[in-house]
Amino acid sequence: LRDQGAALARRAELGWDSAAAAAALLRRPDVKYAVVAARGSSDNAARYAQYLLGAEAQLTVALATPALFRGPTDAPNLGGAAVVGISQSGQSPDVVNVLRTARAQGRPTIAITNSHPSPLAAAADVTVDLAVGAERSVAATKTYLASLHALLQILEHLRPDKDRRRRLAELPSLVDATVQAELATRARFDGLHDASVLTVTGRRFGYATAHEVALKVRELGGLTTEAFSPPDLLHGPVAGLDAGGWAWLVAPDGAEDPDQHEHLLTVLRQRTGTTVVAAQNPHLLAAADIPLELPADLPEWLAALVAVIPGQVAALRLAEIRGVDVDRPHGLSKVTLTR
Amino acid sequence: LRDQGAALARRAELGWDSAAAAAALLRRPDVKYAVVAARGSSDNAARYAQYLLGAEAQLTVALATPALFRGPTDAPNLGGAAVVGISQSGQSPDVVNVLRTARAQGRPTIAITNSHPSPLAAAADVTVDLAVGAERSVAATKTYLASLHALLQILEHLRPDKDRRRRLAELPSLVDATVQAELATRARFDGLHDASVLTVTGRRFGYATAHEVALKVRELGGLTTEAFSPPDLLHGPVAGLDAGGWAWLVAPDGAEDPDQHEHLLTVLRQRTGTTVVAAQNPHLLAAADIPLELPADLPEWLAALVAVIPGQVAALRLAEIRGVDVDRPHGLSKVTLTR
Repeated sequence: LRDQGAALARRAELGWDSAAAAAALLRRPDVKYAVVAARGSSDNAARYAQYLLGAEAQLTVALATPALFRGPTDAPNLGGAAVVGISQSGQSPDVVNVLRTARAQGRPTIAITNSHPSPLAAAADVTVDLAVGAERSVAATKTYLASLHALLQILEHLRPDKDRRRRLAELPSLVDATVQAELATRARFDGLHDASVLTVTGRRFGYATAHEVALKVRELGGLTTEAFSPPDLLHGPVAGLDAGGWAWLVAPDGAEDPDQHEHLLTVLRQRTGTTVVAAQNPHLLAAADIPLELPADLPEWLAALVAVIPGQVAALRLAEIRGVDVDRPHGLSKVTLTR
Repeated sequence: LRDQGAALARRAELGWDSAAAAAALLRRPDVKYAVVAARGSSDNAARYAQYLLGAEAQLTVALATPALFRGPTDAPNLGGAAVVGISQSGQSPDVVNVLRTARAQGRPTIAITNSHPSPLAAAADVTVDLAVGAERSVAATKTYLASLHALLQILEHLRPDKDRRRRLAELPSLVDATVQAELATRARFDGLHDASVLTVTGRRFGYATAHEVALKVRELGGLTTEAFSPPDLLHGPVAGLDAGGWAWLVAPDGAEDPDQHEHLLTVLRQRTGTTVVAAQNPHLLAAADIPLELPADLPEWLAALVAVIPGQVAALRLAEIRGVDVDRPHGLSKVTLTR
């Protein structure tokens, strides 16, 4: 967690060539959309890809259904797709199977992985190596941000943008400063230890962040956590919110209507015990029990990326309070060999 | 809930022509994959569609990202897609927006709705009318099964299959018998009232069922519930299971390796308080605290469909115990006007 800024600084100049090759595959005239296969934190990076490449490059990005790719014979037809696998270890058999099937169907394949060579890289036409070194903890942190960085590199080759390029160059120092500031104030998360559940909500880029915050706090803290988009929460699950629970709203400035965020926060304040809000909007921050002020003037894709850091720190803090070994929490293992 | 068999019997002969027209759109040479937009229970029907049309017709089905379809200008390019909207009310603005954008891009559109005419139907080239009459409760039950029936009708036009057609004809009586049997034994779910959380797991067709069971119990019972595929659960979230929680495994016979189900059940027994298993496999049933025996010799798509009924009944039972008005539970409203 602490070395994420340094890890991003190390890969600032790496990966651009393979990202260019990946972008070239995505630009092929026969490629109509992308399918991403991933699990765990990498699946949250895939969610980020849906909004990043969808909003910024008008590319439709679908999440794969790995259970349909057990063998090459009756798998869905991937005609029109480029297929991307994201896996830190490059080992996850079900992610590898999706890429192998895509290749057997003659479709272009891209691997984003921290492990090269690996079975995933072997199944890919192009591999974007995260190259941030081994992640000691089972709970991915620097590899998560590195995966987002790799996706941003690919986007930069699809739709170059000077402002985005400049901000990417500043990303390591922004991440480092945010990590330091959050660590210094982490005692504000101590009440999580007594929460019955943590419900995280976010939309668009913030949807990916919401899932990643929920996953980190769950993996490291052993707490029941969940993530929703606001519409999905309001379509029924809101009925199961708990007065003893915490609600955490990821609400960077952007395309979402601020009134929708305020409406949601009102509902969350009525139905849960403690509210955390990661935002720039002063009205939203003022209404939160625990305001997490995001830096002003960040574009939505970047504010949502940075907003994962307080979630990582809250997860670490809960693990500290509970005496959890963060390198191997709750009996989790690094590579989950599910098929 | 009680009239689901009758509702399916009423639509047994309805909808086939519009399903044929929908299948014709999906078979167009320029259609490489389908995108489904939906919320709530309809989103669980969309998950069922991913496995049904993927496994049985080799059609890739993606779930839409409605947040990217706020306006037609910067929405993702849907080239190669046929776009399906599922909404009981036909009103959900974000689902309607996805179809309108698809149409503006010249893509074929299909509505599956219980409300015709409606804004969703108006945005579609073909409307499959569920035609099962008004659903009194906010928590969809008969419209959920009717949506699955409509998807099965579309599949039947894509890949006719005599056995499936025969089983579809028998579906109303199977559903009716299952509802009666589950209602008669619903006291076995009374302990849910004291559960801290309900965690439902399932894979492939059972993944959709797991989500729908979790949603019903949450909407009607006001309990914290969650749904995972086994690999997603084992990739981290397993750390947040609670000894005071219930685990519910949807595990019909089918393509999933029985050893994987048994492994998962062992983990669930170690980490949760009470286990419920919906299955045919006698080993799995014997290891459960509450075995829900599914009828033998059902294909996976049908066993998973029927397996939603005990979940609906558990939800009703919890609402009974807690004195919840099932027609309007926990302040939910029928149409959620999120954008």
